[in-house]
Amino acid sequence: MKSLLIICDGMGDRLTSGKTPLEAASTPWMDKIAKEGINGIMDSVRTGTRPGSDTAHLSLFGYNPFKVYTGRGPLEAAGAGLTLKTGDVGIRCNFASVKDKKIVDRRAGREEYGLQELANDIDGIEIDGVKTIFKKCPGHRGALVLRGTNLSSEVTDSDPEEINVGIRKSVPLDDSEEAKFTSGIINKFTKITTEILEDHRINEEREKLGKLPANAILMRGSGIKPEIERFEMRHGVKGACISATDLIKGICRLVGMDVIDVEGTTGHVDSNIKGKALATIDALKSYEFVFLHIKGTDEASHDGDFEAKKMMIERIDKEVIRPILENIENTNVVLTADHSTPVSVREHTADPVPIAIYGDVRTDLVDKYTERDCARGDLNRICGRYLMDILFDLSNKAKLFGA
Amino acid sequence: MKSLLIICDGMGDRLTSGKTPLEAASTPWMDKIAKEGINGIMDSVRTGTRPGSDTAHLSLFGYNPFKVYTGRGPLEAAGAGLTLKTGDVGIRCNFASVKDKKIVDRRAGREEYGLQELANDIDGIEIDGVKTIFKKCPGHRGALVLRGTNLSSEVTDSDPEEINVGIRKSVPLDDSEEAKFTSGIINKFTKITTEILEDHRINEEREKLGKLPANAILMRGSGIKPEIERFEMRHGVKGACISATDLIKGICRLVGMDVIDVEGTTGHVDSNIKGKALATIDALKSYEFVFLHIKGTDEASHDGDFEAKKMMIERIDKEVIRPILENIENTNVVLTADHSTPVSVREHTADPVPIAIYGDVRTDLVDKYTERDCARGDLNRICGRYLMDILFDLSNKAKLFGA
Repeated sequence: MKSLLIICDGMGDRLTSGKTPLEAASTPWMDKIAKEGINGIMDSVRTGTRPGSDTAHLSLFGYNPFKVYTGRGPLEAAGAGLTLKTGDVGIRCNFASVKDKKIVDRRAGREEYGLQELANDIDGIEIDGVKTIFKKCPGHRGALVLRGTNLSSEVTDSDPEEINVGIRKSVPLDDSEEAKFTSGIINKFTKITTEILEDHRINEEREKLGKLPANAILMRGSGIKPEIERFEMRHGVKGACISATDLIKGICRLVGMDVIDVEGTTGHVDSNIKGKALATIDALKSYEFVFLHIKGTDEASHDGDFEAKKMMIERIDKEVIRPILENIENTNVVLTADHSTPVSVREHTADPVPIAIYGDVRTDLVDKYTERDCARGDLNRICGRYLMDILFDLSNKAKLFGA
Repeated sequence: MKSLLIICDGMGDRLTSGKTPLEAASTPWMDKIAKEGINGIMDSVRTGTRPGSDTAHLSLFGYNPFKVYTGRGPLEAAGAGLTLKTGDVGIRCNFASVKDKKIVDRRAGREEYGLQELANDIDGIEIDGVKTIFKKCPGHRGALVLRGTNLSSEVTDSDPEEINVGIRKSVPLDDSEEAKFTSGIINKFTKITTEILEDHRINEEREKLGKLPANAILMRGSGIKPEIERFEMRHGVKGACISATDLIKGICRLVGMDVIDVEGTTGHVDSNIKGKALATIDALKSYEFVFLHIKGTDEASHDGDFEAKKMMIERIDKEVIRPILENIENTNVVLTADHSTPVSVREHTADPVPIAIYGDVRTDLVDKYTERDCARGDLNRICGRYLMDILFDLSNKAKLFGA
């Protein structure tokens, strides 16, 4: 059998007025998965640990995030399409607006005007023998790769993550020469890019148009390229990823999955999720394993918007789960989340997520796909790190340990 | 209290026409254990990992198979009654039939005629200072021990596990001199035994009787003798094992349990399991811990025979569980399986197994011993590696960790 993993980002929740968004939503197709499948709850990283989307996905793909995770930077850079080599340091960037040496907007007004041209002009700088590769990402974001010998990711961010303060000086986090050297590169990159951006024609145009200038680059989340075994080597199955989120695509690229792009997907609640469902159905014709990631649920959660989250869940039910169930066969399907993001908290939490597996499974008594219903299912409580093992065992792709 | 562990090999299953064999079977005595006991499901090795019978039993006895398991060969050799010393390599063997340098039957027609005499004549060969000890095992099987200095188990099998091909040349799996040396010994053993067997009088007789010749030895699963702490040292309790399966007896011998043989036990569905039950009842008079292993359920599973598995389960219920429950007292009893072997898959899978503990336990609402009923029990989902700890804790044989 084939295997499909559907992750609705941050879908798990706590009670708001006595209900979770999943409980408040009408989800006949998710409920069909629960009713005809086996259910449980899952700690994606470890019981009680609040997972990032990055550590959660690494764990759900079968890796130990406590061992392989080196920071978000290299994952974002890979997701942006930059190819990382061993020893490269990846860093997440924002275009920001600075005035009188103080940050007035960390996202340059979320205004994309001219950012691609600015990105081109700060790409490919060489600093003390280190090559810097810069790429514009969606919105005000960018990804930076430092390539050279003797680099370290043990350095602090230049992004203070607040406004009305100056850009931070990066400092080494350990005593190594590498960390000292790398923080120096970051500080020089800040200085050089500020000089290039400050007097750039684009920023003159932005000011004339009444837009905030994009005259500084803020850096955060630096990390060395992680050493991760390829997914196919670990699980014996080649996978395809369908996601609109650079971070997730980056993780999938780093573990060697094929990334399938779908037009009109945004990672927001207005995304073309129906197109992703169709791409999933199509991908299952040629791949043994397909991973479908939907981000909108997490976005509504971070906004603290119960109704938007509920509506996004209902859209997923109708536009994703329904066509998939109606058009696939001979496939084990996992429906779950990477973590909870309660609308009441607006941040990721460690509340376990609901999980349902539909296919060649021992069915149970659960008939509704919610956090609390799934908790009563026959999977009981599982650890996310073994999810791929469970799935590929059910699909009879697993190897025997022993004899 | 005393402790009894009953393992029905491969008894766990998936749904076939909506039911598992345990669900289809009539098992009033197993159900009594469930109803009066506490129930759950168990991952014998690790969630999602498909266990061999060897790694599963190691784990259920409280050992970490990822650390102690070195291959099936030394366990089979120990089970066959060969005594292994530190540094010995144990290897599983088959008598096979070769014609024109191609394997025509990997099991010499499953015909035992004269095999004991052949085994005697290839036992005790010395090759390059390495002593080879060969013992005939049930059916067409044999066990081989290589004894010498500087041996390694990092070598490939000579058994190609298919027919119409030649015997494989063993090659080293790492760069060590030991692996190179050991693969050389294996290849010389193939050559020497082929010469002895080819013109052996027994094979002339076999051919005259229309039977396939047993003119080659195929070797697989080589492993160095594992370093395992004795069961009594680990758990503080001396154990006795009742099993008809060499592999299981081998594991028990290696950890220092006493192995009690019962007449008429075969490891097949026709085994004298009633005799094993009586031996169990008897052993509990002198041992604090008895382990009873029944193989027939796994055999029916590998044959994909739902009805045979169901009938074997009903035989176990009537001929094993009933007399045990009627004749023991003051004993905590665990009823479980080492792994699932769904009849639909015909191989071991990672589906968790049902477990019931009867004795001085907090009872729950489960009243039927099946995979799905047990999944709703109060033990929830446990890891097999801690089973002995749970059992000896209930029997008040456990030590305090801390103070």
